[in-house]
Amino acid sequence: MPIVAAAPSHSTEVLLSLFIMLTAAKLFAEIFERLRQPAVVGEILAGVIIGPSVLGWVTPSEILHILSEIGVVFLLFNVGLETKPSTILRVGKTAFSVAVLGIAIPLAAGWALLRSRGSTHIEALFVGTSLVATSVGITARVLSAMRVLEAPASRIILGAAVIDDILGLLVLAVVASFAAGSVNYMEIATTAGLALSFTAVAAFVGAPLLKRAASHFDRLRIGHAFFVCALILCLGLSVAAAYIGIAAIIGAFLAGMALAEATEGNHTLHKQTSGVTEFLVPFFLTYIGMQLKLDVFRDQSTLFLALLLTVVAVFTKMVGCGAGAWHLGLRQASQVGVGMVPRGEVGIVVAQLGLSLGIINDSLFGVILFMAVATTLIAPPLLKLLFAPQSELH
Amino acid sequence: MPIVAAAPSHSTEVLLSLFIMLTAAKLFAEIFERLRQPAVVGEILAGVIIGPSVLGWVTPSEILHILSEIGVVFLLFNVGLETKPSTILRVGKTAFSVAVLGIAIPLAAGWALLRSRGSTHIEALFVGTSLVATSVGITARVLSAMRVLEAPASRIILGAAVIDDILGLLVLAVVASFAAGSVNYMEIATTAGLALSFTAVAAFVGAPLLKRAASHFDRLRIGHAFFVCALILCLGLSVAAAYIGIAAIIGAFLAGMALAEATEGNHTLHKQTSGVTEFLVPFFLTYIGMQLKLDVFRDQSTLFLALLLTVVAVFTKMVGCGAGAWHLGLRQASQVGVGMVPRGEVGIVVAQLGLSLGIINDSLFGVILFMAVATTLIAPPLLKLLFAPQSELH
Repeated sequence: MPIVAAAPSHSTEVLLSLFIMLTAAKLFAEIFERLRQPAVVGEILAGVIIGPSVLGWVTPSEILHILSEIGVVFLLFNVGLETKPSTILRVGKTAFSVAVLGIAIPLAAGWALLRSRGSTHIEALFVGTSLVATSVGITARVLSAMRVLEAPASRIILGAAVIDDILGLLVLAVVASFAAGSVNYMEIATTAGLALSFTAVAAFVGAPLLKRAASHFDRLRIGHAFFVCALILCLGLSVAAAYIGIAAIIGAFLAGMALAEATEGNHTLHKQTSGVTEFLVPFFLTYIGMQLKLDVFRDQSTLFLALLLTVVAVFTKMVGCGAGAWHLGLRQASQVGVGMVPRGEVGIVVAQLGLSLGIINDSLFGVILFMAVATTLIAPPLLKLLFAPQSELH
Repeated sequence: MPIVAAAPSHSTEVLLSLFIMLTAAKLFAEIFERLRQPAVVGEILAGVIIGPSVLGWVTPSEILHILSEIGVVFLLFNVGLETKPSTILRVGKTAFSVAVLGIAIPLAAGWALLRSRGSTHIEALFVGTSLVATSVGITARVLSAMRVLEAPASRIILGAAVIDDILGLLVLAVVASFAAGSVNYMEIATTAGLALSFTAVAAFVGAPLLKRAASHFDRLRIGHAFFVCALILCLGLSVAAAYIGIAAIIGAFLAGMALAEATEGNHTLHKQTSGVTEFLVPFFLTYIGMQLKLDVFRDQSTLFLALLLTVVAVFTKMVGCGAGAWHLGLRQASQVGVGMVPRGEVGIVVAQLGLSLGIINDSLFGVILFMAVATTLIAPPLLKLLFAPQSELH
């Protein structure tokens, strides 16, 4: 870190790192937005450039790691806040079969690909898991910009993405606990059971309870009482999730989901949450980029695996999700299939977790990151093509 | 930390600490609000109780320290956001003489008291500095609740508090740089000059520039562009301040002040900032409490010094500020004097800085903290008494 060599104190060094990370992230986000590419990819690229692989202005450290962890907790909390349990029930059978097929096929294909190339069982499972969860944020932004959010295919995509998120995080929970210890099927079943009950309690008990409790928050004397309670719930469920053996981010997501209906239309709370998210999430995204060792792609077999995994990622989601929506006809089925392609943040969260648990190495981390970024870049132009006639009719 | 003994990973431990700190802070804030006492005192007390002095649930650590530093950066940024340079010019001569006398007399008296009790020159200067800056937040909240914010004395208090903040932070900058190295008067003059020019540039160049630039932020494609730019400015000026040898918090305050007029009426930006502040400031306040070693008050001379310093703190501000507003008559002069008594956060920031620079020891830290908390508790009932007839007329 040559730039901070003369730092007067440790906290000044950290402030400088945060300043560089935030500025670079937002500069690249702006450039990517102007190129009509996803801002999230720009923020990760900013991390690659300021990190040890290129400029070396900021290096990963314990403190930056923890700040990025807090960032991803809030990212998932925010995703949860936009996930109403009632929409899951409304979208029905089609969304459910889209989600389930869109999870099973990529998971199996990713696992098979890695096994065929000599990876261990657990590495292969982790890479498969990184193919599971759709990052619907990118798709939602494209559909909303085209004003086709109300089209039938769009509704199915958004509904399926919710189920997909929950199931994907459950798969992650099981795989991570599977990876953490010895292979104990009883324990995996317990974790899956705990994760399922945790989800069910958050969605079907927590949500209605919080909706009724919301009006009582006004009785508290402290300022911003509702927001403060939301923060406490977010941190509390994150810690609880970590202690029962599933990832902290799952707790944060469930806290958000449980609050989604209670906070609907509460603009102050959403703005306050967006303040925290806008501040902290760039540290997560740039930190991801900072961890990427570009060297790994010098090895041709790694680069080849990255390309292969991307093809598998795109193809299996299109086939899996398309099959789930097949009865709607080829056109809508392919709209749904393409809409579910981006892996983005969620795939990256899996890669990050795998790296920090020591399950996957730098090469596989690079491969997953490549796939997540590539699928995120591929989907928007395809979506525009497939939805274009509808958009013109609008 | 018995409670986190079984923690699965370091970041889970940190999340648990944050959860405990936030929950305890807000619980005590609520209790104090209900007792009609300042919430900020409740949050510090929460830290004392969860910290090593009492329950030992959370212990100070490098990471919590840095999070609390980021918290105080945002606290001062928020104070700056409510400090319009134009109001300083408007309140005129009275506010200025109130501020200057209200700084000089407590500084001199605090220094003399500590010297007379055998402290070193630099310790005495630091304790004197902790008596300097008024924490107007408490007073403003009381005056606003009584609906007398428009009374002449209230206007002078608020105007003087702004000048007082700036001069107080300048005194802190000079004393801290004085403490950091050998006594080099040239260097002190340079630091003071830099601090003054930094303040002048932020207030008279930065503020109008940002006011004009504000409309151009809309042209940026990234989401929440104005808020993101404000965050970058806050971190950037904090780092710049630290590198030119003044405290990072001064940079954050100046960033806020430079943005104050540009962001007036921008509710989204204020809510987003309040989101970050509400999340991070409790970590600063509880961390303060966690550092207090209650043992120090077992030594009767320390307890006596704490009481003595509190009396000096109250008396010198009343005399100094009252003298500055003397021409308004006894009643308004005493309203002004009492309104400037609370030291609160700003005194605590000085104590924190002194402790982390190794200038003051645990006993003096305890003494300053006692004084800051006591003045904050004393002022509100006195203010209510002095403003009561006006409030009834209203």
